[in-house]
Amino acid sequence: MTEPTKFTLTEDRIPTHWVNLMADLPGDPLPPLNPGTMEPAGPDDLTPIFPMALIGQEVSAEPEVEIPEPVREVYKLWRPTPLYRAHRLERELDTPARIYYKYEGVSPAGSHKPNSAVAQAYANKEAGIERLATETGAGQWGSALALASSLFGLECVVYMVGASYDQKPYRRAMMESWGATVIRSPSDTTDSGRAQAGHPTGSLGIAISEAVEVAGKDPGTNYALGSVLNHVCLHQTVIGQEALAQMEMAGDEPDVVVGCVGGGSNFAGMTFPFIRRVLRGEARTRFVAAEPAACPTLTRGAYRYDFGDTVGLTPLMPMYTLGHDFVPPPVHAGGLRYHGDSPIVCALVKQGMVEARAYKQNETFEAALRFARTEAILPAPEPAHAIRAVIEEAEAAKQAGEERVILLNLCGHGHFDMSAYDAYLAGELEDPEFSEADMEAALERLPDAPAIA
Amino acid sequence: MTEPTKFTLTEDRIPTHWVNLMADLPGDPLPPLNPGTMEPAGPDDLTPIFPMALIGQEVSAEPEVEIPEPVREVYKLWRPTPLYRAHRLERELDTPARIYYKYEGVSPAGSHKPNSAVAQAYANKEAGIERLATETGAGQWGSALALASSLFGLECVVYMVGASYDQKPYRRAMMESWGATVIRSPSDTTDSGRAQAGHPTGSLGIAISEAVEVAGKDPGTNYALGSVLNHVCLHQTVIGQEALAQMEMAGDEPDVVVGCVGGGSNFAGMTFPFIRRVLRGEARTRFVAAEPAACPTLTRGAYRYDFGDTVGLTPLMPMYTLGHDFVPPPVHAGGLRYHGDSPIVCALVKQGMVEARAYKQNETFEAALRFARTEAILPAPEPAHAIRAVIEEAEAAKQAGEERVILLNLCGHGHFDMSAYDAYLAGELEDPEFSEADMEAALERLPDAPAIA
Repeated sequence: MTEPTKFTLTEDRIPTHWVNLMADLPGDPLPPLNPGTMEPAGPDDLTPIFPMALIGQEVSAEPEVEIPEPVREVYKLWRPTPLYRAHRLERELDTPARIYYKYEGVSPAGSHKPNSAVAQAYANKEAGIERLATETGAGQWGSALALASSLFGLECVVYMVGASYDQKPYRRAMMESWGATVIRSPSDTTDSGRAQAGHPTGSLGIAISEAVEVAGKDPGTNYALGSVLNHVCLHQTVIGQEALAQMEMAGDEPDVVVGCVGGGSNFAGMTFPFIRRVLRGEARTRFVAAEPAACPTLTRGAYRYDFGDTVGLTPLMPMYTLGHDFVPPPVHAGGLRYHGDSPIVCALVKQGMVEARAYKQNETFEAALRFARTEAILPAPEPAHAIRAVIEEAEAAKQAGEERVILLNLCGHGHFDMSAYDAYLAGELEDPEFSEADMEAALERLPDAPAIA
Repeated sequence: MTEPTKFTLTEDRIPTHWVNLMADLPGDPLPPLNPGTMEPAGPDDLTPIFPMALIGQEVSAEPEVEIPEPVREVYKLWRPTPLYRAHRLERELDTPARIYYKYEGVSPAGSHKPNSAVAQAYANKEAGIERLATETGAGQWGSALALASSLFGLECVVYMVGASYDQKPYRRAMMESWGATVIRSPSDTTDSGRAQAGHPTGSLGIAISEAVEVAGKDPGTNYALGSVLNHVCLHQTVIGQEALAQMEMAGDEPDVVVGCVGGGSNFAGMTFPFIRRVLRGEARTRFVAAEPAACPTLTRGAYRYDFGDTVGLTPLMPMYTLGHDFVPPPVHAGGLRYHGDSPIVCALVKQGMVEARAYKQNETFEAALRFARTEAILPAPEPAHAIRAVIEEAEAAKQAGEERVILLNLCGHGHFDMSAYDAYLAGELEDPEFSEADMEAALERLPDAPAIA
């Protein structure tokens, strides 16, 4: 085995711009809608909770957006991230496929999330904001924003989904170590929380409502979202741009790019630079989005306008949705337990550019362990879904006898998810699936918004 | 801030040889002693539990030892590790010092430990061994050996100190995810364990006794130790060799190199290549070893022959010791709770080449948080002791108005130590210190071995 294993870029190769795929998509984008009027929402709808710089990025039609130098300086703390050739996994699978993975778990918070958290903290600091409010489920986003706030001298308050707060005290301690205040949601600190007090374990939708409410009421506090929105997807495109350069170093061209989708940000970050090449006729690449069977937004959801949160404070977005008040079963991939998805990613699925697949918990952890015992890294449960899809692709390549090149976004490590591995090893994991009855109930409760043409 | 932050080496720069400092030390090394006869122990004393390749490395007088190619191939999964300039910490301290840190936490197990685990697993696999037995306290070494065993197709059994087994279920789950069998120590699977059944929380010394006993009784099983021994220190010298190259990239020359010492392996790994330069008259560098005040082996111990384990199964080694049956208070830096230290490191302290300093828990975690909130990485409690020493050096440089260059070995992250951070943030950490009475009791129980000249 003398072929290279790790493709390393030096810090001067950190991208100078983010890739804005909006500029490449055909037609005008579907606008978000004001939750009160159901009319298209404009920048004014967002100024109470976001700084103008981020609103500008949210609606930008420019193909590229320059990365501010102070943001690139912070990126140097872990970027560029490594790209690996998975020699050992290939041998284990006895496949002619060549498998590559980009590893975002080297960030101090353990996932891709700081790519956007740093950009958001910087924009808010520049706008004179003193405090950021956000929500976190699995804890990846809350950790990332706590870290970014610490680096830019902002206060940070994190509404943590009650069930996670109780089960993941170490994620809470991590956020507090970076100086954040962590509040169990639903809490008595907001109207939204008090209204949902009967929901003891909380949900991501409720926690979003609480954080948005706090930001809306305090002029010195803004809100920060870790996925779904266009500007978050934009920030994550440093991943795919680096991967493009690293695949070139490897002298290989991916046939298929694979990622998991919760709100869509890591998937967008890896794929958008590759999708741009396809849209411009420069490459032919397939894209596979992996999601949990317990929360199968892209494979089972309705393509409709829906709220981003449970209470209904956010603008409505055009997306595949399982209903804004759907509370997914407590699978361990907490970062994928969201009722909707990034509108851009949803549009790409709708257009057939991206293929979505849903996987159950046990088959996902089986894939995670095969990866860990060959490639050494213990993946987070979220990208383990994508690893499952990679193994399917590699096995299909073996069946077809073809040299398929597969590129995976390994968006985070599982150091804070060991209780999930423990449960899997003990044979205690369940395989909940979304039901027809769940979908019928969700459709009845969708807001009365215009249909999507 | 346009100065570089991260100094990155590509995988072809992984060292080809380990540095054997034994070849540079003046005089003949003090031999280990057979625990039965108190005569110098030879290779035959070690063959029941170690493969010949490692015994050869243990006693080698060659200045360099070639790294087997399969070991270098595994190193590529995380090596070379990055070297950082701590711009943000320097600004926080307002110091003219330039601070650099080598970050070993990027390994899949989260510390420097796999550098030796991989070398040991390979040597045992080559010798036809089927299973490795070891002990683990904080869990870093057990995780590393579980990982390395998985990569080379060996079984792995880990005796985990009872208190850690109970408090750190996620470390256990990590080892099991890599396929290891983890047994709570003291256990009823060994005579050593049964004899110590009255010690409910266990200790590292007892766990070593259990693992050594298992390896001694089963020809297909060998023992692996994560620190202290010469061959372990040898394997770790990839750290310092890479750091030498990276400091050259940075165009800077360290005035002082700082690391923490438990058994001594991370300290040896970073410093030995630098110490060789000093011994050869090629550089003038100071070296600082940081240890816990609760287990102050180098600063308070007796320089004597003592056992490596509690029961007295191992050869006696010449080292600073607090007594082989000393059970340190339960401070959170579990990796530093060992009664002895590497004989080479001890000899360097004795000769005045290395200065040792002891720190209490609270001042250590205070330093860890200052680091985390500026440099983003959450350090493990063990290297947090070294960070405390770095801050002292930087503050002394400020007092003296001098441009001191400080190099730190940040040997691991704290992702599995968040309960310790939690306790610190809650103001619940105690500051136990080793007492004169502890030392008097230890001296009385030291084995009746020859004095060190």
